[in-house]
Amino acid sequence: MLPHWVYEKCPGISTAHREAAIARQAQLTKPTGALGRLEQVAIDLAGLQETVQPRAARVPIIVFAGDHGIVAQGVSAYPQEVTIAMMSNFAAGGAAISVLARELGSSLEVVDAGSLAQSPISGIVTDKPRCGTRDFSVEAALGPAELAFAFECGQRAVARAAAKQPDLLILGEMGIGNTTTSAAIAASLLGVSADEIAGSGTGVDAAGRARKARVIDDALSRHGLTKAGASPEQTLRTVGGLEIAAICGAIIAAAQRRIPTLIDGFIVSVAALAAARLNPSCQPFLLPSHQSAEQGHRLVLRALNIQPLVSLDLRLGEGSGAAIALPLVRLACALHNGMATFAQANVPDRPA
Amino acid sequence: MLPHWVYEKCPGISTAHREAAIARQAQLTKPTGALGRLEQVAIDLAGLQETVQPRAARVPIIVFAGDHGIVAQGVSAYPQEVTIAMMSNFAAGGAAISVLARELGSSLEVVDAGSLAQSPISGIVTDKPRCGTRDFSVEAALGPAELAFAFECGQRAVARAAAKQPDLLILGEMGIGNTTTSAAIAASLLGVSADEIAGSGTGVDAAGRARKARVIDDALSRHGLTKAGASPEQTLRTVGGLEIAAICGAIIAAAQRRIPTLIDGFIVSVAALAAARLNPSCQPFLLPSHQSAEQGHRLVLRALNIQPLVSLDLRLGEGSGAAIALPLVRLACALHNGMATFAQANVPDRPA
Repeated sequence: MLPHWVYEKCPGISTAHREAAIARQAQLTKPTGALGRLEQVAIDLAGLQETVQPRAARVPIIVFAGDHGIVAQGVSAYPQEVTIAMMSNFAAGGAAISVLARELGSSLEVVDAGSLAQSPISGIVTDKPRCGTRDFSVEAALGPAELAFAFECGQRAVARAAAKQPDLLILGEMGIGNTTTSAAIAASLLGVSADEIAGSGTGVDAAGRARKARVIDDALSRHGLTKAGASPEQTLRTVGGLEIAAICGAIIAAAQRRIPTLIDGFIVSVAALAAARLNPSCQPFLLPSHQSAEQGHRLVLRALNIQPLVSLDLRLGEGSGAAIALPLVRLACALHNGMATFAQANVPDRPA
Repeated sequence: MLPHWVYEKCPGISTAHREAAIARQAQLTKPTGALGRLEQVAIDLAGLQETVQPRAARVPIIVFAGDHGIVAQGVSAYPQEVTIAMMSNFAAGGAAISVLARELGSSLEVVDAGSLAQSPISGIVTDKPRCGTRDFSVEAALGPAELAFAFECGQRAVARAAAKQPDLLILGEMGIGNTTTSAAIAASLLGVSADEIAGSGTGVDAAGRARKARVIDDALSRHGLTKAGASPEQTLRTVGGLEIAAICGAIIAAAQRRIPTLIDGFIVSVAALAAARLNPSCQPFLLPSHQSAEQGHRLVLRALNIQPLVSLDLRLGEGSGAAIALPLVRLACALHNGMATFAQANVPDRPA
């Protein structure tokens, strides 16, 4: 059983603030609608944050890491040690997300939610029920208590971040093998074959991708997850990952505190899909960032009804795609809050 | 005749710096190619800037304004006074580009390259051969000396900006009626009908757009610009605009100083197309920013072989789309310069 809080309702959108934002956009010195998608970003944020001045200034980044038993089936282009090595690289400041956090003025917390590391790593929060998941081609990846622990790991991370009074949150992930895990979860939740959703991950070739899809389809059918009616909980427990479950918990816990999350790439989007299935009231707090190069991302975003802001062929994970899109959200807020109205600037509006 | 400098060759790309950047990208702690388009941005900039540390820190913004005689034909949704009112709004800090310049730490210079303003406006550089163009549905928009003046206006603005040692340049425009002028230039340069390229501008309806296309087609055929072989110079003089010609000159003058320009929306892209036709050696210095909602933009970008970084349904002009894309270029540079290599971070690379 997942903890009771997972199902508690998130706060609603403030219709009054949303409508005030729509009215303000129409008065700013620009042709109606000329700021395109950025107008919508500001309007959505105003409603979610219950404010007339939407903000994306304080945006902590939390990266959850985990290892995956399914790697034994040869599904990744990189060796499994990379998960632990990259956690250290995050903390030492050398990874993409470390550089992005510095540039954006964001704090970066790295949480070992389930890597194979046997002892705590300097600069990293260790919060895991076990080291790595079980190989889901053989047995269920997680036990019920382990899955619940991972959700609470996500909730604890959000509680720490909440002390910074964040405007938004960016959640990222690291875990060799986790595109396979994510594709398995998505295939089960969306009721599609793995071939439709499994991509090249960090860079397997066509044969590797086919093998990955076969491993997933076989496992889903062995565990009875191909029939309609498998619960998101059952799917996460059977073919899930600890970092993915932690992100799922973090998304829900953040939404319950009225903190929207900028949804990163394929893996975080799959966690978001599971979150929206478990607790549909968190859905409005899932904000778009990027469309990745990973094959299944488009399908998952469509299921979430999220239209990405940018499509730059990124396929790195770590939260990097959301971080790269953050400046667009910040500029959307600055334009909304800082532009003059037609009346203020004494500019003639178009004839009514 | 355009001034002689317009045809002088721009410096070439540094192959050595470009190749060093490609080699560096392959060593950074990420799967090969995982930063997608941002890797290419950093590699291109390294070659253009002749450096191992591509930069987009200092990026002055110059907005050129002009009025258009063709407005007499009822082609715009807004009254012509808006050009002058918006110039004041730029200078006073209330316009979108003013807000963006502040957020990005960019200087903003507004150049009156040909508005109807009879006397200089506070905070704006006046540098124009006449007030507004002639109505090109009746006669040529500009005389040869007026066109040459506008190119030199662009060159002078770049010379002022060059004192700031810019890494890149953003050029913007303001001018009621200038999507009509731009569509006429593009239709002539690309040899397509106005219907393929004329869009809604600041917001004319379907009937307005059809009228706009008809006005353009009639004018192009009256001036003999539909036959192949019209020179870019003849096109700019006959159906051009002063701010557009100034931007064309600025793009070439910047490239000659090895300063790339982030190419904004439809109007700046048309100026860039004319620049590339006049002096093909400036082409590598035209960098992508956004794909606007204006119908003809896609065609013009394709002709320039520029693939935009973002597509946000913007249709504001002012340089705002380029400004909105600038943070992506900055992050591309930061990632290129700041990430650790596999060797530095002691992360295992994929098996060769």
